[in-house]
Amino acid sequence: MLSWVDGRPATDVPLGDRGLAYGDGLFETIAVRGGCATLLPRHLARLGEGAQRLSIDLDLPVLEIELPAFFAELGEGVAKLIVTRGDGLRGYAPPQPSSPRRILLGNPLPSYPASNAEQGVRLFPCVTRLAEQPLLAGLKHLNRLEQVLARGEWQDAAFAEGLMRDVSGRVIEGVFSNLFLVKDGVLLTAELSRCGVAGVMRAEVLEQAAHQGIPCEVRDIAFDELLAADEVFLCNSLYGIWPVRELAASVWPAGPLTRKLQALIRSLLDS
Amino acid sequence: MLSWVDGRPATDVPLGDRGLAYGDGLFETIAVRGGCATLLPRHLARLGEGAQRLSIDLDLPVLEIELPAFFAELGEGVAKLIVTRGDGLRGYAPPQPSSPRRILLGNPLPSYPASNAEQGVRLFPCVTRLAEQPLLAGLKHLNRLEQVLARGEWQDAAFAEGLMRDVSGRVIEGVFSNLFLVKDGVLLTAELSRCGVAGVMRAEVLEQAAHQGIPCEVRDIAFDELLAADEVFLCNSLYGIWPVRELAASVWPAGPLTRKLQALIRSLLDS
Repeated sequence: MLSWVDGRPATDVPLGDRGLAYGDGLFETIAVRGGCATLLPRHLARLGEGAQRLSIDLDLPVLEIELPAFFAELGEGVAKLIVTRGDGLRGYAPPQPSSPRRILLGNPLPSYPASNAEQGVRLFPCVTRLAEQPLLAGLKHLNRLEQVLARGEWQDAAFAEGLMRDVSGRVIEGVFSNLFLVKDGVLLTAELSRCGVAGVMRAEVLEQAAHQGIPCEVRDIAFDELLAADEVFLCNSLYGIWPVRELAASVWPAGPLTRKLQALIRSLLDS
Repeated sequence: MLSWVDGRPATDVPLGDRGLAYGDGLFETIAVRGGCATLLPRHLARLGEGAQRLSIDLDLPVLEIELPAFFAELGEGVAKLIVTRGDGLRGYAPPQPSSPRRILLGNPLPSYPASNAEQGVRLFPCVTRLAEQPLLAGLKHLNRLEQVLARGEWQDAAFAEGLMRDVSGRVIEGVFSNLFLVKDGVLLTAELSRCGVAGVMRAEVLEQAAHQGIPCEVRDIAFDELLAADEVFLCNSLYGIWPVRELAASVWPAGPLTRKLQALIRSLLDS
């Protein structure tokens, strides 16, 4: 496995790293094809926003040099970038100044069944609910126990993803995807100011839809609205778009708007 | 610094560890004096409960052999035990079976000003609120960004600790301590089924108080109840008990019940 720490090949991280101690850091999961990354500006923008909100002194210029070199060496695969606050004193107080640590891990692209994109997927109804923490909402930070618990709820491969709701029952996202509905020609996705991860593909889908003149709403979504949707789909930066065909007793077709956006996103991923 | 991984001296952890990737693990901070740990059965009980709730296959018999050897080598200090779910496949799904990793770090005992225990401390009123996540409440897990944010709110050494409330404004705990009030002779501490860390010293204080015939209540605590308290104190497994003398415009005496419990806990820590 290809792996770098602070720009040099490495396989380990010091025990004093605050990523290990407290999940004190951020990550990005980046699709790499032909030595180039997809949606890299969006990944870096989200990372930058996360670093700002967590007061992590991210060295973006160094990353902008380091990442292309890593992508070139990886060639084809998934690049996982982890940025931690670096080594810590004992205790929660962020060291000042701190020396954030950059970790890059290369892995093969995941091989999902072609049917996920073609016929759509079945969603597992997770009972793990997302807590409301506005200070962390939207960020792809390293505190991911909720996702670990949710993903641990099912082993049956018939479920490609799980639906996550917040503590109030609102529809938020998948465990490793964002979720969209279509109702009466309007594209809907959850507002993520209380919980959830603001995926880079979610942002891309919203922008592509706007370019196509498709009306979009980003707001709270009640569970009943999901059940009454005309189309439902998931997205993330690795697989693009998967139609959702089934959740418990509800079934949806892979509808025209889903197919249109899926084709647009596929051409982006394949380019 | 003395540090072991899975029973052997080590200074690093593999990049694939799920503690780093997701904060997928638990920790304990244990006071060690004369080669022996204080409150070890309580630490192990909490760790065991955490492992059960997170479905981490904790090898308690191995820990029960390893820990005394580590404590003996450390002699005097703080032993931090981290248990992660071990190395992971890519993705949130917990590997089955998994091989949890045991990390032990030795550090000197923190040197707090003697006045913290004697005259009491000033509490910083943190604006970071604790999110409500019943599935994780009470556990000392590795998802600690809320504490990192809260502790980052102040640098002024005049504040020895910070007060953390939940999203509804209830009084929960300190950033690295539990909090107790005394009102009309009754000892009160927050119920921790929605958020917070159920400290081992909190459990010890409750048991010591019960032995002394002091009435105890564990329940939700409104902010106004804190302000109206006769006495307020903090506790954790390293420093024992600190009276709280000040929070914003409120001041409290280091009252008789605080002093009584403090003496009992001090004799326990010094023994």
